Amino acid sequence: MAVSARECARRLQTLSSQERSKILLDIADALEAKEEEILAENEADVAAAQQAGYENSLISRLAMKPGKLADGIILEKTSSPLGVLLIIFESRPDALVQIASLAVRSGNGLLLKGGKEAKRSNAILHKVITSSIPPTVGERLIGLVTSREEIPELLKLDDVIDLVIPRGSNKLVSQIKAATKIPVLGHADGICHVFIDKSADLDMAKRIVLDAKTDYPAACNAMETLLVHEDLVQTGGLNDLILELQEKGVSLFGGPKASSVLSIPEANSFHHEYGALACTVEIVEDVNTAIEHIHRHGSAHTDSIITEDKEVAELFLRQVDSAAVLHNASTRFSDGFRFGLGAEVGISTSRIHARGPVGVEGLLTTRWLARGSGQVVDGDKEIVYTHRDLNLEA
Amino acid sequence: MAVSARECARRLQTLSSQERSKILLDIADALEAKEEEILAENEADVAAAQQAGYENSLISRLAMKPGKLADGIILEKTSSPLGVLLIIFESRPDALVQIASLAVRSGNGLLLKGGKEAKRSNAILHKVITSSIPPTVGERLIGLVTSREEIPELLKLDDVIDLVIPRGSNKLVSQIKAATKIPVLGHADGICHVFIDKSADLDMAKRIVLDAKTDYPAACNAMETLLVHEDLVQTGGLNDLILELQEKGVSLFGGPKASSVLSIPEANSFHHEYGALACTVEIVEDVNTAIEHIHRHGSAHTDSIITEDKEVAELFLRQVDSAAVLHNASTRFSDGFRFGLGAEVGISTSRIHARGPVGVEGLLTTRWLARGSGQVVDGDKEIVYTHRDLNLEA
Repeated sequence: MAVSARECARRLQTLSSQERSKILLDIADALEAKEEEILAENEADVAAAQQAGYENSLISRLAMKPGKLADGIILEKTSSPLGVLLIIFESRPDALVQIASLAVRSGNGLLLKGGKEAKRSNAILHKVITSSIPPTVGERLIGLVTSREEIPELLKLDDVIDLVIPRGSNKLVSQIKAATKIPVLGHADGICHVFIDKSADLDMAKRIVLDAKTDYPAACNAMETLLVHEDLVQTGGLNDLILELQEKGVSLFGGPKASSVLSIPEANSFHHEYGALACTVEIVEDVNTAIEHIHRHGSAHTDSIITEDKEVAELFLRQVDSAAVLHNASTRFSDGFRFGLGAEVGISTSRIHARGPVGVEGLLTTRWLARGSGQVVDGDKEIVYTHRDLNLEA
Repeated sequence: MAVSARECARRLQTLSSQERSKILLDIADALEAKEEEILAENEADVAAAQQAGYENSLISRLAMKPGKLADGIILEKTSSPLGVLLIIFESRPDALVQIASLAVRSGNGLLLKGGKEAKRSNAILHKVITSSIPPTVGERLIGLVTSREEIPELLKLDDVIDLVIPRGSNKLVSQIKAATKIPVLGHADGICHVFIDKSADLDMAKRIVLDAKTDYPAACNAMETLLVHEDLVQTGGLNDLILELQEKGVSLFGGPKASSVLSIPEANSFHHEYGALACTVEIVEDVNTAIEHIHRHGSAHTDSIITEDKEVAELFLRQVDSAAVLHNASTRFSDGFRFGLGAEVGISTSRIHARGPVGVEGLLTTRWLARGSGQVVDGDKEIVYTHRDLNLEA
């Protein structure tokens, strides 16, 4: 049932906004047309609940009733800090500076746990940063956790810590996700694809593929799987590219088709992140097969299409259900700095809260403020709530 | 360390935006002033890592290096559906219609599990609604789960279901949160406070308190704790209010002060949701004590202040760290319909993803689309990334 719902939902996504509204109107019509039947069934439920001796409060919720007006409350949706963040990062001491700056700017408390290989760098950075926090706030705003043994204890504090951000290997992220009830912002896998369409500019394709794989092979936004349109096998475009990758020291593993056509070893799995100078290659029929491959084997992180055909590009951009989808650009661009988010908190493949490269907004939540003059709800009696956007009038 | 960080963070929140920026500038100055010392510590880390035989990729991340320009990529931040939602609701068949409409509009797949006391109502509503979904999408977009036994199985499907929304009792929400790795949108507790300041209009206070408690006692946004400024004990304002609550059949339990002043039984705990015609009363020194009480004993759902003193009201609105904070209005307003969000998904006390009353935006996530012309990152060599908001130019 869940799988069917996802398949239907992917089809629903491809409909236009008007088409979706049409379905809603059809539903409203159907509900109106069947009103008597629906109310009869509901009355039967209410009668059965009364007979079964349910509490009145439950029965009153069970009964269906008509419509809802209020006046003069000014409602404001504001941003506020999440609370206390726990950042666990490996290597990269500059991550400490980025995250501490984001925390101060956004008003969050912070616990930092860096890798032991950067302990001196982290200690001095922490000291320099906290010494600049005024006593009215308190330098304990940012705590540095120094021993690995403290992490399991920290991961239990779901009443005090609001978000865990692990920055490091897949393994680190998976371990943390498994060990805590605190929400985790991050990505376990970065299985990023580049699909070269038959209409691609092959020089551009070569430049992008080399960059996506070799610019920083250990990065989560590096290409792990290269998908190539089958027409490029005949034209020789694929061979050139393969040679160039091999010259740069990239080890190649093939899917069933590519391994026989290119005489390269077969990949064990399409769902594999090398994180090194290696990648999987496969030959696909067309853009639709490429999209299916990405949905089935990818990790919904970052995927790119190289094509000169605008329609094919738009199809790919609309349908690929990943955090970042690119056309004629290297997957390596999927990054908070390059996306202009200022300092980067991390890249999230979660669908909840923040997705893709995350900047300061990932460290914020919502607070609703309402200023009234004595309003009460009083059963919403004959009330129709109307709302005006005061921002638009300002 | 976590508790200290939260305390410091609450103080940081009360600073102005300029004051926070000032701290950031101080941090930047301190980092520049200590650059040599920092780089020396970092070099020591790098040397130690080399000696310890760490991989080069780790060492290159460990070393700190200077700054980063790219050109012509058009980046678009779009909304997209979360995927598949599982809604578990008790009673209230109209919740089915609301949620199904929200799902269709937002493009999400849906699994619905209603209470057995509404099984006929839910079945007919499900049938009517899915019969309006065109075959191009498929009526299995919305599945109706009919047996309670299927829930534990569904809660294991964290690879297929993206969000669980329980609508019902605290108990239901807590059980689901404990039993799944899928993110849960909702609130376990709704321990909402009304604080009556010494400057309150007492007629207004009476109207609001009665509404907040008696309009719908089982609702999560009903008042559970009444906090009263101590000056109102002498003036007799408190006594009037207590009599009126008792006349309406509200059972009263007191904190240490209120129970002796008002001769009412002592409450077992301030952290208690009655969900019925009962509430806790306590006398507090001033707005600051009230805020402390709310932070310590509340559930960060919805809290209201009744006061004619604008400064006191703004202090309360700024400092109370709850999903919804109101001034001179009943806590019962904290609701998606009344807030104008259209159909309501639920009210969230989570700080992650969506907080407070949640409408359709709680069912959406982000997708980043980038349209380039062959750009590669190439080590960000001498590149400074600049960004322009094309929306502002349109």
